[in-house]
Amino acid sequence: MTWDWKKKLNRKIRLADEALDKYLPAESTMPPTVHKAMRYSVFAGGKRLRPILVMAAAEAVGGRDEDVLPAACALEMIHTYSLIHDDLPAMDNDDFRRGRPTNHKVFGEAMAILAGDGLLTAAFEVLAQQSSAAGIAPGLVLKVIGEVAVAAGTLGMIGGQVADMEAMNRQVSIELLNYIHTHKTGALCRAAVRSGAILGGANPGQLEALTGYAENLGLAFQITDDILDIEGDPAKIGKDVGSDQRNQKATFPAIYGLEESKAMAEQTVSKALQALECFGPEADLLRDIVRYILDRDS
Amino acid sequence: MTWDWKKKLNRKIRLADEALDKYLPAESTMPPTVHKAMRYSVFAGGKRLRPILVMAAAEAVGGRDEDVLPAACALEMIHTYSLIHDDLPAMDNDDFRRGRPTNHKVFGEAMAILAGDGLLTAAFEVLAQQSSAAGIAPGLVLKVIGEVAVAAGTLGMIGGQVADMEAMNRQVSIELLNYIHTHKTGALCRAAVRSGAILGGANPGQLEALTGYAENLGLAFQITDDILDIEGDPAKIGKDVGSDQRNQKATFPAIYGLEESKAMAEQTVSKALQALECFGPEADLLRDIVRYILDRDS
Repeated sequence: MTWDWKKKLNRKIRLADEALDKYLPAESTMPPTVHKAMRYSVFAGGKRLRPILVMAAAEAVGGRDEDVLPAACALEMIHTYSLIHDDLPAMDNDDFRRGRPTNHKVFGEAMAILAGDGLLTAAFEVLAQQSSAAGIAPGLVLKVIGEVAVAAGTLGMIGGQVADMEAMNRQVSIELLNYIHTHKTGALCRAAVRSGAILGGANPGQLEALTGYAENLGLAFQITDDILDIEGDPAKIGKDVGSDQRNQKATFPAIYGLEESKAMAEQTVSKALQALECFGPEADLLRDIVRYILDRDS
Repeated sequence: MTWDWKKKLNRKIRLADEALDKYLPAESTMPPTVHKAMRYSVFAGGKRLRPILVMAAAEAVGGRDEDVLPAACALEMIHTYSLIHDDLPAMDNDDFRRGRPTNHKVFGEAMAILAGDGLLTAAFEVLAQQSSAAGIAPGLVLKVIGEVAVAAGTLGMIGGQVADMEAMNRQVSIELLNYIHTHKTGALCRAAVRSGAILGGANPGQLEALTGYAENLGLAFQITDDILDIEGDPAKIGKDVGSDQRNQKATFPAIYGLEESKAMAEQTVSKALQALECFGPEADLLRDIVRYILDRDS
């Protein structure tokens, strides 16, 4: 990772943060509590992986950051809502997230449910209204809204969360583990890359290559996440280490063992990089993101 | 109300039911539990007021049912998700809805949260994908998605629910009562009428008239709802009578008294009908809906 790469990445993170701040209602907007709760979780120090993927995919096909910022923010809002709802007492019952008390610990369960609902709804509002304002062809925006909704819905992310919940404290097959991860985290990463590519003007061949990249990237991300839950530094990942094991969660190390999981992560990363072979330096950011995911410590 | 009117209404209800069945994943679709939970509440005998409003508004401006069915179903999905989440123990903690156990009583809290999330997400998926399939101009569909998202979000329905929740057990001003009702139920009714009108090809004058109709209709609906909570037959409304009073909810009878509330309901109905004066018989269904709301017993 070069200094230039980090500079470029930080610029995109700043763009996403500024746009999120612009698109979300101010804390004082009536009714203030729900807007405070939404902003509390959106500005809680997330890595902004999904917005970065949207912008990096657009860049790979010659699109501009400004044109895809609404989609980038929409995906971050959906990701954040899913964390708020997943943390609820009825779900994973987590008290901490990224080192801070979870949304319901601060604002109460009812408000956390509504803040999540609000972020999910705002995601589609921003996609529809801000993409139109940015001058993107309505047909492309509609295609992206459809893809994002499928990826976030019960055939995507929600489906993965349901299967994950139902798998807890049970022996999980490799097929089910794959289903859970391609859906719970994979679907939204895939939608992020595809949204950026579609809005950036990808041709069918480029879209297919980037989809292959995204699927392997999502898998690599999940495997390293599972590994970090065992080997990570709690101060850096902002939550307890070993919680997957205590909750008897379906993880790659639980099924394949730690060493095999590490080998799988590296293999998946290679496949993601291979998928980008038809691109030149315009896809360098996508390449760097893959390496970053393998090397991260949080 | 004539026999013809009822026949027409029932035909539109059947169209909405068939389309909802077609758009929602089958119960056997992986993961089955969440799709069962979604269908349990969608097919729980709702009045389908919002789908009817979408179709009736389209009819008033010369649009066809088939073209607005995706929007009609999307609004019903959003309405259903809001009921599932409102009934949760952390929110209104209701055990019964329309005479049946509420979603979380049957499927558990976690699944009810996810089923609600799934319906909200599916609403935007159906709007984007099915409206495109129906051949509606993408620009119009995007406009409707934006309007529906604003109406369902924290500046609309969710905002109303937050304010309603925060007002419980407190003295409520007339201004706050108005805010709660124009947002909690009004916003989505307004979006239903406007969506049907926009997709049906309304000109600006027609859209303005229909918006006035919708705002008064929503208010009339809420006032009669509050009155039914006091005077209604529990067997017909499918929930306990007097629950608003027990929960010290902000209602029209609580602030204005029962008789004054009844006069207000009639006045609001007159205003809704007046707003339709520029329309001929093509708006008769919209007129009948208003009278139906005033005379209903559930």
